[in-house]
Amino acid sequence: MVKVALDALGGDFAPSVVLEGAVNAVNKDSNLHIVLCGPEAEVKAGLEKLGYSGNGISVVDAPDPVAMDEHPVQVLKKKPHSGLVTCVALQKMGKVDASVSAGNSGAMMASCLMLLGKTTDKFSRPPIGCVIPTVDRQIVLVDAGANVDERASTLVDFAIAGSAFYQTYYNCEKPKVGLLNMGEEEHKGPAVLQEAYQLLKNAPVNFIGNIEGEDLLMGKADVVVSSGYTGNVVLKMIEGFYEVHQKMFGTIDSEAGRRFEEMWDYRMTGGALLLGLNGTGIIAHGRSDALAIEKAVEVAAKYAACGVAKNVNARLAEIKDDAEAAPATNP
Amino acid sequence: MVKVALDALGGDFAPSVVLEGAVNAVNKDSNLHIVLCGPEAEVKAGLEKLGYSGNGISVVDAPDPVAMDEHPVQVLKKKPHSGLVTCVALQKMGKVDASVSAGNSGAMMASCLMLLGKTTDKFSRPPIGCVIPTVDRQIVLVDAGANVDERASTLVDFAIAGSAFYQTYYNCEKPKVGLLNMGEEEHKGPAVLQEAYQLLKNAPVNFIGNIEGEDLLMGKADVVVSSGYTGNVVLKMIEGFYEVHQKMFGTIDSEAGRRFEEMWDYRMTGGALLLGLNGTGIIAHGRSDALAIEKAVEVAAKYAACGVAKNVNARLAEIKDDAEAAPATNP
Repeated sequence: MVKVALDALGGDFAPSVVLEGAVNAVNKDSNLHIVLCGPEAEVKAGLEKLGYSGNGISVVDAPDPVAMDEHPVQVLKKKPHSGLVTCVALQKMGKVDASVSAGNSGAMMASCLMLLGKTTDKFSRPPIGCVIPTVDRQIVLVDAGANVDERASTLVDFAIAGSAFYQTYYNCEKPKVGLLNMGEEEHKGPAVLQEAYQLLKNAPVNFIGNIEGEDLLMGKADVVVSSGYTGNVVLKMIEGFYEVHQKMFGTIDSEAGRRFEEMWDYRMTGGALLLGLNGTGIIAHGRSDALAIEKAVEVAAKYAACGVAKNVNARLAEIKDDAEAAPATNP
Repeated sequence: MVKVALDALGGDFAPSVVLEGAVNAVNKDSNLHIVLCGPEAEVKAGLEKLGYSGNGISVVDAPDPVAMDEHPVQVLKKKPHSGLVTCVALQKMGKVDASVSAGNSGAMMASCLMLLGKTTDKFSRPPIGCVIPTVDRQIVLVDAGANVDERASTLVDFAIAGSAFYQTYYNCEKPKVGLLNMGEEEHKGPAVLQEAYQLLKNAPVNFIGNIEGEDLLMGKADVVVSSGYTGNVVLKMIEGFYEVHQKMFGTIDSEAGRRFEEMWDYRMTGGALLLGLNGTGIIAHGRSDALAIEKAVEVAAKYAACGVAKNVNARLAEIKDDAEAAPATNP
């Protein structure tokens, strides 16, 4: 049994779509239990309206609403009884295996950081590991937007975390790690990427060199390492491309059309995973509908069940030990 | 009559596709004259093979080949009789209005910079202004990959140059200028973008604020300002999207399919324009086929005819004067 806590008031269309997504998720997976965190009476009434009376969902009362633009740390301090903070607190108490919110993403980040705690001081903020589509399969992008102005060594840590994520989730021993750059040669790009390239050559990952935007979409790498800024641009462009396609062609009724919907619709990849935490924190899209919520819960359960966070943390810890154990270099 | 010099040996599939593209371009536009720069006998034989005997094309002998990985400055010094250098030199001599090469882009950049000269010291390298597709129209991206690690003030200069480009080419008085960022709020993103945001508020452009990757593809801005690095990732991703679509769906035989091909096929937008030069230098895609060459020549002629370079330079010069004329701020 995997238990996932879900913020019932999180997202632009909460709580209705959140409840609907939760019901659909537990109806599909009898091994899944969802703890809905939100105003108890409202949530229970909503579930009743949906005709749900099973025992795959329980409710924890968390009445405080959180606005999308509320200051993250203020939310944590002043709204301990919000669905957002509660779904993380339950994991801290060991009552659930993962926490999901489509609400204020900064507040979710802060709650996970403060309550679950980070496992390494390498990151000022846990990088966002996001599953993204390519022409024929999914790959992992790190960081999809938590950090800015990273040092080269931080990009290496993104690579290690992303590599462990991919290894565990896709059961792949040596995922190919590419550095998102503007040319293949190692002297190309911003100074920090040139430096990261040199560090990655000696990092404990299967570094395949620089990859460009087009290579990324052709699936040349399994893990794409990027600054949070450019990673976020990439993620939003992928969403935008799906939207362009929808506006121009609608849903195409063919085998290729179905594959495209399954892979490129942002809702299908569920939420993004915060890396380097003592636990599994998932940020779902603010404009999530029921399907997006269902998928976010589904991946949260999968990440927790296969131990993505544990493996990521073990790999990050190993590296730290290696570095500490290494003899000082003679000048 | 607009005269365009074209590097006959530039690109992965030169000279055959270059000659074919040139012939198609002049056959379509009787007001266009192309000067093919390359090994004279080979070029003339190629034109004869294509059955072309009109007077829309002339040939200037430039026998030196330039490799794609040759050092840019070395090309300029040691290969003055290459098609690449010659097509720029002809413009310097006033014999043509624009120069196009699908060859070594660094060498084309260096040749344009050294031979045509830059009009402003604001840029260490002329930024690349590139026309890119959105859901329903074309917009301009600056910089698409010439610069890295720009200062905030350089991003403002990109905005001014891009705005003048869009104004002139699309005959639009106040193009909307957006700063590519990872959130709409002005405090979002890397430090240099936060600084650029403040500068852009007072810059002589119609600044609409930050735009995200998705907004870009939805055509929220007419001109998108970005670091050369992230701009290049954006450009390559757009090419990648088209490729993904092609691989998944092939060419779709419908009105929408035709519109998609016309807008998203990288070949249709022709080459990218170097901004801030005394002249019109166009870098075409290395893997250009005949259609891409034809379109690159077509846009080169259009840019030259409507005076894009002149207007960009006038606007950049104005700003310089303004800044110089402004009284010193009291501390």
